[in-house]
Amino acid sequence: MRWWGWGEDGAAVKLPEPAARLLREELDLSGDERGEHVELSEVRLPDPRLPEPTRRSLASAVGQENVLDSREERVTHAAGRSYPDLVRLRGGDASGAPDAIVAPASGEQVAPVLKACAEAGVAVIPFGGGTSVVGGVEALRGPHAAAVSLDLRRMDRILEVDRDSLTARLEPGLMGPQLERLLGEAGLTLGHFPQSFEFSTVGGWVATRSAGQASTGYGRIDALVEALRCETPVGGLSTRNAPASAAGPSLREVMMGSEGTFGVITEATLRVRPAPASRHYEGWSFSTFEEGVRALRVLEQGGAAPDVARLADVDETRLTMALGSTGSVADRAGRAYLRLRGHEQGCLAFTGFEGTHEEVARRRGRAASILRAAGGLSLGERPGRAWLRGRFSAPYLRDELLDRGVMVETLETAAPWSALLAVHATVGGALREALTGRGTPPAVMCHVSHLYPSGASLYFTFLARQERGTELAQWRVAKSAASQAIHASGGTITHHHAVGTDHAPWMPAEVGPLGVEVLRAVKQRLDPTGVMNPEKLLPER
Amino acid sequence: MRWWGWGEDGAAVKLPEPAARLLREELDLSGDERGEHVELSEVRLPDPRLPEPTRRSLASAVGQENVLDSREERVTHAAGRSYPDLVRLRGGDASGAPDAIVAPASGEQVAPVLKACAEAGVAVIPFGGGTSVVGGVEALRGPHAAAVSLDLRRMDRILEVDRDSLTARLEPGLMGPQLERLLGEAGLTLGHFPQSFEFSTVGGWVATRSAGQASTGYGRIDALVEALRCETPVGGLSTRNAPASAAGPSLREVMMGSEGTFGVITEATLRVRPAPASRHYEGWSFSTFEEGVRALRVLEQGGAAPDVARLADVDETRLTMALGSTGSVADRAGRAYLRLRGHEQGCLAFTGFEGTHEEVARRRGRAASILRAAGGLSLGERPGRAWLRGRFSAPYLRDELLDRGVMVETLETAAPWSALLAVHATVGGALREALTGRGTPPAVMCHVSHLYPSGASLYFTFLARQERGTELAQWRVAKSAASQAIHASGGTITHHHAVGTDHAPWMPAEVGPLGVEVLRAVKQRLDPTGVMNPEKLLPER
Repeated sequence: MRWWGWGEDGAAVKLPEPAARLLREELDLSGDERGEHVELSEVRLPDPRLPEPTRRSLASAVGQENVLDSREERVTHAAGRSYPDLVRLRGGDASGAPDAIVAPASGEQVAPVLKACAEAGVAVIPFGGGTSVVGGVEALRGPHAAAVSLDLRRMDRILEVDRDSLTARLEPGLMGPQLERLLGEAGLTLGHFPQSFEFSTVGGWVATRSAGQASTGYGRIDALVEALRCETPVGGLSTRNAPASAAGPSLREVMMGSEGTFGVITEATLRVRPAPASRHYEGWSFSTFEEGVRALRVLEQGGAAPDVARLADVDETRLTMALGSTGSVADRAGRAYLRLRGHEQGCLAFTGFEGTHEEVARRRGRAASILRAAGGLSLGERPGRAWLRGRFSAPYLRDELLDRGVMVETLETAAPWSALLAVHATVGGALREALTGRGTPPAVMCHVSHLYPSGASLYFTFLARQERGTELAQWRVAKSAASQAIHASGGTITHHHAVGTDHAPWMPAEVGPLGVEVLRAVKQRLDPTGVMNPEKLLPER
Repeated sequence: MRWWGWGEDGAAVKLPEPAARLLREELDLSGDERGEHVELSEVRLPDPRLPEPTRRSLASAVGQENVLDSREERVTHAAGRSYPDLVRLRGGDASGAPDAIVAPASGEQVAPVLKACAEAGVAVIPFGGGTSVVGGVEALRGPHAAAVSLDLRRMDRILEVDRDSLTARLEPGLMGPQLERLLGEAGLTLGHFPQSFEFSTVGGWVATRSAGQASTGYGRIDALVEALRCETPVGGLSTRNAPASAAGPSLREVMMGSEGTFGVITEATLRVRPAPASRHYEGWSFSTFEEGVRALRVLEQGGAAPDVARLADVDETRLTMALGSTGSVADRAGRAYLRLRGHEQGCLAFTGFEGTHEEVARRRGRAASILRAAGGLSLGERPGRAWLRGRFSAPYLRDELLDRGVMVETLETAAPWSALLAVHATVGGALREALTGRGTPPAVMCHVSHLYPSGASLYFTFLARQERGTELAQWRVAKSAASQAIHASGGTITHHHAVGTDHAPWMPAEVGPLGVEVLRAVKQRLDPTGVMNPEKLLPER
């Protein structure tokens, strides 16, 4: 991954001219805005401060060649991939860089690393793909003088596949494409496709309670974890590999979502499925967002939900159409059809079904009749295929927008169905008000991204002209307004982006002051010297 | 519930003569064995030792009339309904009785009760229906001089139904039949039917991670809990009402299964469903247990699982048929048919589908074709209906067997599919060896009771002639052999009976020594004086 953006060098997604024009209008851009990034050699990097005895202990644990501190490695581990991360990195600020990167080859090598760091008072930041968008991997030190990133990239094996039980025991450093390739060779899939899929890891998914684009069908990662092994500064912790248990509180559910603040996930046993022989992705239109929400609710509660279900609001629909617009005859005919059916201000939805040919045919038939009865117009497979092709492209597009001087950020929540429209209106309104108030009128878009019987998630994207020089202040105002609105309207502060630093101040609102104290008690027991990922997850006292 | 057994006085299930004959043979009974229970007035009950100032505080919190200490109340709260509980109670030993019973009317009344007890060092044992079969409700004191049962029977209201989100906010003292009646009036069901359904409560289900007979379809209780409110000695703890969240470790999953050792559940928001318009229960036969297990695995992993799925092993099939035998022509014809098809040593299974007529027809059609392809013979609806009629009868029958001097106990586990047959053989073998070794040859039966994509649960019932005078020693040997076998063969120590006192010694094996320490850290934070349900869940240090 390139240090200043998304993907590998050379990979890029260009903004089509119709979309650029739309943004110029909506964001009040002159078209002359530009955002640059400094060269790697110009990035400001603090001097490494890892004490020499600790370096020797780490080298003896993982091998000298796996304790790294080159400029590029340190900058790459200085931050995740949130908007503020990219603003800082592009501006040459890598003050969040670790003093060194340590790359163990196994759980056995992790244990002495944690021990050495706990004894020396060196912070340890577990690092998978580095794709956190909430400040989860920045090498903050807490009260400690030095910090190392514990990079799990060498722990990338499938340890065991249990075909009868449909589970796979995995190392945490496996990245999405490699995992799916290896499982695919065994005729299996995990079915976990977060937008970060190409660069994020099994351990990162589990540590942050990730959800993938197909999680409505395959289940979010926390629903796929059968068992875990973790290393903590005071020893190993394993949960039993059982399909279900009544043996007390769930320690698996304590380690999931702990974001490296209690320990490091060194193995995860995940449920897998036969790789789908068939995939059917289809576009739908609803005349209003409310109608679409109701249709998805009926679909989910009727046990007919697709594997992927998404519903864009009016604003996201408009931009999606502009992004996908080719100006072709088919395009124009499609728009004319929607106009004719009273959907010119409508909302675009996607459904995706995966499985055997027989299953896909049966499930999509049932879903289609429910969606039609609820007011949906089928747009056929073309929009569905287009969505599937572009499913991982948004972060690439962000680089292009940053190059054009446009702030672009996403945030998400989940709420009961009964509160969903209110959360949508409240959060969207708060973002518009906050950014318009600063003289940078935004585009705020949202889609329903995951369905549950009791509710759904909402995923917001907002764009605005960057305030040059005060980019972070501008972002903070918008983010804070949205977080406040989420909390006030009954949503959770995060459905799948996790907590990191950005949401840590909201944890008392989320789980209550006593809930925070319970988490602190667990941390105190597992990480008594507080070296594990300081300043993340839990708010400052 | 009568103090010495199950159900209300007068309710009884008689053992049919063919089954009695079978047991006489298999258990080496003379037929003259008898078990009696003493009269209530003869039960040995320790003098109440609740300090007078504490009694006054409790009375001021809940009202004088809701602090109870009659003989009957104390005996009823002295134990749950495990085999050792009944042996002790029937023999007149109520040494586990609380000094008083406190019955709050609301969460607001629970808080001062816990505060008063924490300050005075009086143990608090949360009590729902009192149906624990693992020693969960016995009024053990730990280091404290006195103990009260916190009976939640007055907190039995539905607080709110969210029809859009299909959730209901419930008080913990609601018992199964009352809950289903109230939900039914709104056209809804929870679908949670443990064998204890008639006498167990919402709070008890959640605190022990209960599973119901239809949990394969409706989901075990821990999968139905959307949000919780708890009171602890140091304050209230609420989890957010969200369909899913990535905001850190799950505190809901910390409180579920905590069995009253961290605090008391005062509200639970559970997912509900439309009440089924149609129910279809059907019997199946498989030529071997292995064939049946494979068929259920294929069914579950193919996304075609019924709401209720059970598969009896050869021994349980034999006794089930003897219990259901009427000697009728239809009966004899059925047996002849099974013989003809090579199933005379076969295994009986049940499938149950609930939902709309259309759903039930569609789902059972798909399941039937999978089961047939996997070797199943349909036995039609008659056995299914018989099972449904008798679904809550086993604990009544236990009283009848105890009256005949027969030990009867159940235990259960869950394991990955790949380990299931080994667990079945190992646990069954251990029980047979342990009891035969004492000169009391047992009948050991088992059924698969709940299906998951990655595995299933096994539910064992074992019967043997009671050793008069050493009933508890006999039980301990059998229980210990079974627990050891479960652990050694890869099962969890409990799939849905919970931990209580019986399984507490196995918690280090289940979650590891460090896992136990994490649970202790949570308890220390929420219950610093250790008054909450002492000696349960966690092993003695």
